[in-house]
Amino acid sequence: MPVGNIAPPEVIHAIDGIEIGITAAGIRYKKRNDLVVFKLRDKAAVACVTTSNKCCAAPVLLVREHLSQLATSDNSVRYLLINTGNANAATGDEGYRRALQTCEALASKTEVAINQIMPFSTGVIGEVISSEAIINGLDACLANLSHDNWLAAANAIKTTDTIPKVASTQIEVSNGIRYQITGISKGAGMIRPNMATMLGYVATNAPIAKPLLQQILKELTNLSFNRITIDGDTSTNDCCVLIATGTDTANMIDTEHHPHYQAIYEALKKVFIRLATLIVRDGEGATKFITVKVSGGKTVEDCCDVAYAVAHSPLVKTAFFASDPNWGRIVAAVGYSGAKNLDANQVSVTLDDVAICTRGQLDPNYTEQQGQEVMSRPEITINIDLGTGEAKDTVYTCDLSHDYVSINADYRS
Amino acid sequence: MPVGNIAPPEVIHAIDGIEIGITAAGIRYKKRNDLVVFKLRDKAAVACVTTSNKCCAAPVLLVREHLSQLATSDNSVRYLLINTGNANAATGDEGYRRALQTCEALASKTEVAINQIMPFSTGVIGEVISSEAIINGLDACLANLSHDNWLAAANAIKTTDTIPKVASTQIEVSNGIRYQITGISKGAGMIRPNMATMLGYVATNAPIAKPLLQQILKELTNLSFNRITIDGDTSTNDCCVLIATGTDTANMIDTEHHPHYQAIYEALKKVFIRLATLIVRDGEGATKFITVKVSGGKTVEDCCDVAYAVAHSPLVKTAFFASDPNWGRIVAAVGYSGAKNLDANQVSVTLDDVAICTRGQLDPNYTEQQGQEVMSRPEITINIDLGTGEAKDTVYTCDLSHDYVSINADYRS
Repeated sequence: MPVGNIAPPEVIHAIDGIEIGITAAGIRYKKRNDLVVFKLRDKAAVACVTTSNKCCAAPVLLVREHLSQLATSDNSVRYLLINTGNANAATGDEGYRRALQTCEALASKTEVAINQIMPFSTGVIGEVISSEAIINGLDACLANLSHDNWLAAANAIKTTDTIPKVASTQIEVSNGIRYQITGISKGAGMIRPNMATMLGYVATNAPIAKPLLQQILKELTNLSFNRITIDGDTSTNDCCVLIATGTDTANMIDTEHHPHYQAIYEALKKVFIRLATLIVRDGEGATKFITVKVSGGKTVEDCCDVAYAVAHSPLVKTAFFASDPNWGRIVAAVGYSGAKNLDANQVSVTLDDVAICTRGQLDPNYTEQQGQEVMSRPEITINIDLGTGEAKDTVYTCDLSHDYVSINADYRS
Repeated sequence: MPVGNIAPPEVIHAIDGIEIGITAAGIRYKKRNDLVVFKLRDKAAVACVTTSNKCCAAPVLLVREHLSQLATSDNSVRYLLINTGNANAATGDEGYRRALQTCEALASKTEVAINQIMPFSTGVIGEVISSEAIINGLDACLANLSHDNWLAAANAIKTTDTIPKVASTQIEVSNGIRYQITGISKGAGMIRPNMATMLGYVATNAPIAKPLLQQILKELTNLSFNRITIDGDTSTNDCCVLIATGTDTANMIDTEHHPHYQAIYEALKKVFIRLATLIVRDGEGATKFITVKVSGGKTVEDCCDVAYAVAHSPLVKTAFFASDPNWGRIVAAVGYSGAKNLDANQVSVTLDDVAICTRGQLDPNYTEQQGQEVMSRPEITINIDLGTGEAKDTVYTCDLSHDYVSINADYRS
């Protein structure tokens, strides 16, 4: 059961210049939507980040190649082609050939260049993908193209996800100028920086210049998708795409000093963090949503090391599942985090507002009853003050439950 | 249920110069042995390695201080004082004071210097330890001293361990010169390099000079206790002690070139690896014993990174629990391991003798039936050939089962 507020937004804003088509192509399962095509307005700006996994999937290789080719061309990305059910990873040359075939087929049907197609796959690793199924599904996707298919697309890209993940907002940056932002994501296991078995697609009709768009995407993934962890596994297929379709050259946002920059950045940030934390809320077997806030570090790197060590620790995660205030496990994880500037006698830990460990030892006012009470909450913030400086960082995670084991032991996703 | 051959040796050799006393001191649980005293012959050589966790426990601090003081003195370590039930970690100055009190009490009763006592604790983190219980138990331990208490000591230092961990062997290094080696260890969760919630005590009556003994200990812990992982958590209390009680100066082993060196090194290595792999066999909730052998690496570091990534991956571990040959998860872990010299198209994986992935993709001869068969075995070796060089390394781990979650969620060890 996903944790907390996971409802899709009441209003999902269509994004001018983006149409989405969906079909059930039968790639792995029958009778469920598993193929999605995004059609982008010509000359839309597209930014993309991909997995750091060195055994990355065939479509990821193609995305990188195509983007690199487009960088020196006048052409822009015109279609995203996304399938679930098969990750087309660890499939070698055959996998690459099949991914390319699907791009060729879509390019031919839509009369664009092959490198204007970006393919994305998610699902089981190591099995040969049915490029035939994908190619046979293309006509249905193209016939189905619509501005209003965001929620349906969020459903169609799920694997072990139990909920569709959508965020949408609208801002007014100046008199009469309104921009919409809408995004979807997927992922529930194999979630760890950098990225995950994570796919994310966010689009806005704001006019943002491509170099700035890539910078924004990099910054925002570091504050969102790269700050979540479920099981510490980094997938072979992670990708996140940010699209800006705006054509209003008079209001083109091309530097951080543009009057509209801050507003659009903050709005995008909210959408990114929402899409990322929805993944944690839907973490495989999750029963608790945990925010690990580390402050007082000498460096951001130290804070990050500590936050990840705590967020990855199976002992910490099982204690949260059990609502057991076994805070010693948190301190132990801080200790082995590898953070460079660490003084055990300066470390303080609070769970929400309950001080548990103050400067390396049990807080004198702490009672087990307080600990039990706070641990029973479905959403808990672990605040760790390293007491050595001013840096801070935040990571989002969930607990480790019986259902995590069941989901990953009993099903091949 | 521990996995495979976990029986204690039929013969447990007493070690000349080592006596062990045990009692039920009521430190946490009533009516179970929880306090152990090792008495060492005067001038026995003692080597020790301790946890890399920066939030290490009070007794670890004392061990380091005492060893450092003894290094510039003529005195030797005379007593090890080991308790289970409470780790005396994250207990600040008060914990340090209490650990020191127990050393003072034992030193006073045995008329040795305080720094000739090495204290060790294991158990729950963050609770104030009852130094009174320990001190009250000392007389019973001293009255109980015997050469033959190794198995009883292995039982007395357990926490969530389900079996006592003992290894013992005897070698003849030349005509008529025989040496015995006996060791015990504990640990079942919070197991990861470097060390773990791991305690290990190995003794031999071979005469080994102290500097060489420390070098041997360092090398052997790297091949054994530092090559096992259960949950990736490094404990605050890990310590491993190697004692050489031999007094035969004519046969003193003081360099690697000594004629007896190789034989005693190999015998010690077997004992260390047995004590380490017993911990994995008894891993919390373990149903499978997994050896991760990485070969063909450009560097040992690369092999080690890959082996640990695979051994730590919750997705790999749950797949083994389920006997599901979901080998894509292994390849994904190889990919995110951080190994510097990695070519996805050169990676091959076999499970025991079954080739699954050859040069980055499914082996053409592999069948799902073969995969199912090999995965159903209780002991499995994952062979990963990186195809980039000659280096190799091995890590031992177990699967991740429902019982791991139960043990760590339901009990506070």
